[in-house]
Amino acid sequence: MSKSARLQLLRKLALEYQELNGSRYDILNEPPSASEFMRLVHISRPVVIKGMTQPANTKWTNEFLTSAMGDREISVAVTPTGRADAITQGVDGKIYFVEPWVEKMSMNELLSLLLRLENGHYETDSNSEIYYLQSQNGNLFSSSSNEVSEFKPLLEDVPASITWATEALGSPPEAVNIWIGNEASVTSVHSDPYENIYTVIRGVKHFTLFPPTEGWCLQERTYPHATYTRENPGSPLNIVPSSSRPVRWSSVQDPTDPLSLPPDASPLHISLEAGDTLYLPAGWWHHVRQTGLTIALNWWYDVEIRGMNWVWLNFLRGESEDLTDGNE
Amino acid sequence: MSKSARLQLLRKLALEYQELNGSRYDILNEPPSASEFMRLVHISRPVVIKGMTQPANTKWTNEFLTSAMGDREISVAVTPTGRADAITQGVDGKIYFVEPWVEKMSMNELLSLLLRLENGHYETDSNSEIYYLQSQNGNLFSSSSNEVSEFKPLLEDVPASITWATEALGSPPEAVNIWIGNEASVTSVHSDPYENIYTVIRGVKHFTLFPPTEGWCLQERTYPHATYTRENPGSPLNIVPSSSRPVRWSSVQDPTDPLSLPPDASPLHISLEAGDTLYLPAGWWHHVRQTGLTIALNWWYDVEIRGMNWVWLNFLRGESEDLTDGNE
Ligand SMILES: O=C(O)CCC(=O)C(=O)O
Ligand SMILES: O=C(O)CCC(=O)C(=O)O
Repeated sequence: MSKSARLQLLRKLALEYQELNGSRYDILNEPPSASEFMRLVHISRPVVIKGMTQPANTKWTNEFLTSAMGDREISVAVTPTGRADAITQGVDGKIYFVEPWVEKMSMNELLSLLLRLENGHYETDSNSEIYYLQSQNGNLFSSSSNEVSEFKPLLEDVPASITWATEALGSPPEAVNIWIGNEASVTSVHSDPYENIYTVIRGVKHFTLFPPTEGWCLQERTYPHATYTRENPGSPLNIVPSSSRPVRWSSVQDPTDPLSLPPDASPLHISLEAGDTLYLPAGWWHHVRQTGLTIALNWWYDVEIRGMNWVWLNFLRGESEDLTDGNE
Repeated sequence: MSKSARLQLLRKLALEYQELNGSRYDILNEPPSASEFMRLVHISRPVVIKGMTQPANTKWTNEFLTSAMGDREISVAVTPTGRADAITQGVDGKIYFVEPWVEKMSMNELLSLLLRLENGHYETDSNSEIYYLQSQNGNLFSSSSNEVSEFKPLLEDVPASITWATEALGSPPEAVNIWIGNEASVTSVHSDPYENIYTVIRGVKHFTLFPPTEGWCLQERTYPHATYTRENPGSPLNIVPSSSRPVRWSSVQDPTDPLSLPPDASPLHISLEAGDTLYLPAGWWHHVRQTGLTIALNWWYDVEIRGMNWVWLNFLRGESEDLTDGNE
C-alpha cells in the first residue's frame, strides 16, 4: 500500500475512534472489582482510580526513606537534560536515542539532589545534572528476575500484586517499579506492551496520553542508540554512540505542544496527585511530566496477546512505519 | 484505497490473526466467574462451556412442552427450503435476501411437524414445507419490548439473565431467545453485534465459525429484500419482493464447503450437544446446522461500543465492502 493510502487509513481509524470515544475519561471513587477492571481493560481507555492506598502512602516521608534504606546503593539515571531514554542530538549533529548514565548512590544522596530543585536552587545552577530513579526493570518486584531488590526495606509497604488486577488478568504483574524524581525530569512519549496500574505516592504526575490509533501522529522513526557516558569521575556527560540495535522511537519531543502534532491528534491530559491511580491501557502512548518531589509506583501486567487486541496494536504500529522520511 | 490494496490488507490481518490464534478453542468444565468471563470477552474467541444447566434441560420433554403451552399460539418461520433469512433465487432469476413466511400454530402442531422428519417421513414427502421456530426477537425475554412472551409458561425454566455474564458486562441481556427446529433447517452465515451465550437443550447444533478478520472471505453484498408469501391458504410459498431496504448479506451459501471459500479462510467447527453452551463473541460469523429435534436458548448481550472493539469490527466490515462485483 502506498504511504498516502496508509496515512489515509490511519487518519480514518483515528477519527472514527475519536468520534466514538471523545476525550472523556472516567474517575472511579474506589478501586474496581476484578470483573469491573476486566471490563475497563476490554474498553481500553485510561481511568483514574481514587482510594487505592498502601502503607507507602502515609509512611514514605524523606526521613523514613532515608533511615529505612540506610546506606544501600540504588541505581539512578543521570542526564544533563532531564530526558533519559529520549531522542537527543549528539555533538556530531546526528540524532540518537540516548539512554541515561547510571550512578549508584544512597537514598539520602538522591533525595538531597532532588530537593535542591524543590528549594529553588536548580535555576541558579545551570550546570546541574538531573537525577531520576526510573530503573523500571521491576526494581521492586520482578517475575522474571531473582535479584534482590535495591529497595528491599521498602517492599513491605508495597503490595507485590494488586488483587483485583491479578484476578482479572489471570496472572501476577510482570514487574513492579518505583519512580523517584522531580520536575526537572520528563519521560518522553512511548507506549508499552503492558496493562499499567500507576499510583502516585508524593508530588504530582502529568500524563499526556494518545490512543493506539494516534501512534502515527507521533512519527516513530529508527534512531541509532547511544548512552550518556562520563569518561572520568567529575567530567561532564557525553553522548556516546553504542553498538546496541537502533531503536524505534517517537520523533515528537514535546507532545504537550499542539504545534508539534498533526491537527488530527487528540491528546488526553491527566494529572495525578498523591493518592491517585491511573489505569493506563496497553498500547496507549504516554508522555510524563511532574511537579515537586515525586514518588510513584507502578504495576505492569502483561498485555493479552490472544485474540484481536495484539493483532490490532501491531497493525497500527506496522502501518505507521516510515510515513515520514528525511530529517524530522 | 484500491480494491486490491484493501484485499491485501484484509488478507494480511486475517493471516496475522490466524498465526497468533490458530484454530484451537477452549472447553471449560464449569461456567466461568464474572471476571473470567470478561477476560474471555476481551480475548473474543469462541469457548465451549460445560455444566451450565437450567430447569429446561431436564423438564422440556415433548409431553411437558405440549401440555404446558396448551393452545397458545407461537410464531413459526416457514420456508420451502429450510433457509429462513438467507439469499435465494427468485422466479425472476434475481437473487434476494428472503425472510420466511410466519405462521401461528400451537406447540403441539409444531412438534408434530418437526418430528415428521425425525421419524424419517421427510424424505418421502418432498413437497413438505420446513418449520423453524427462530423468531429471535427476544421471544422469551426482551429488554426493549413489553409484549408478553408467546412462551410465558416456559419462562420459569429459563433464567432471564446469566449471573456471571450480566455481572461481567455490566447490564442484563438485550434479548433471550428460544430456537426449536430440526435438521431440515439451516441458519445462513452472518454476524451479530451481540455477545452471545448459546445453550443446547435438546438435539445437536453444528456451528461453523469465522473470526471477524475473515468477514471478507464471506463476500457480503447488498441484496434486494423479499418475503416468502402464501397468497391463499393452502397455496405454495412464493418469493415476493418487498419494499424493505436492501440487505447486506454473505454470498456464500454453504461455508461448510471449503470450495466455496477463499483458501485463506479458516473456519472453526464446533458441535454442541444437549447441555453444552457456546460463548460466541460479538462480530464472529456463524452458520448453524442441526441434528435431530433441536431446542436451544440464547442470551444476547449488547456488544461494548466504547474503546477499540467496535471501531475494529466496523473497520473490517467497511474495508470488505464491494471487493467482489457482478454476479456471485
Ligand atoms: O513516571 C514516569 O516518568 C514514566 C512512567 C511510565 O512510562 C510507565 O509507567 O510506563
Ligand atoms: O440456532 C440457530 O439456528 C442460529 C443461532 C444464531 O444465529 C444466533 O444465536 O445468533
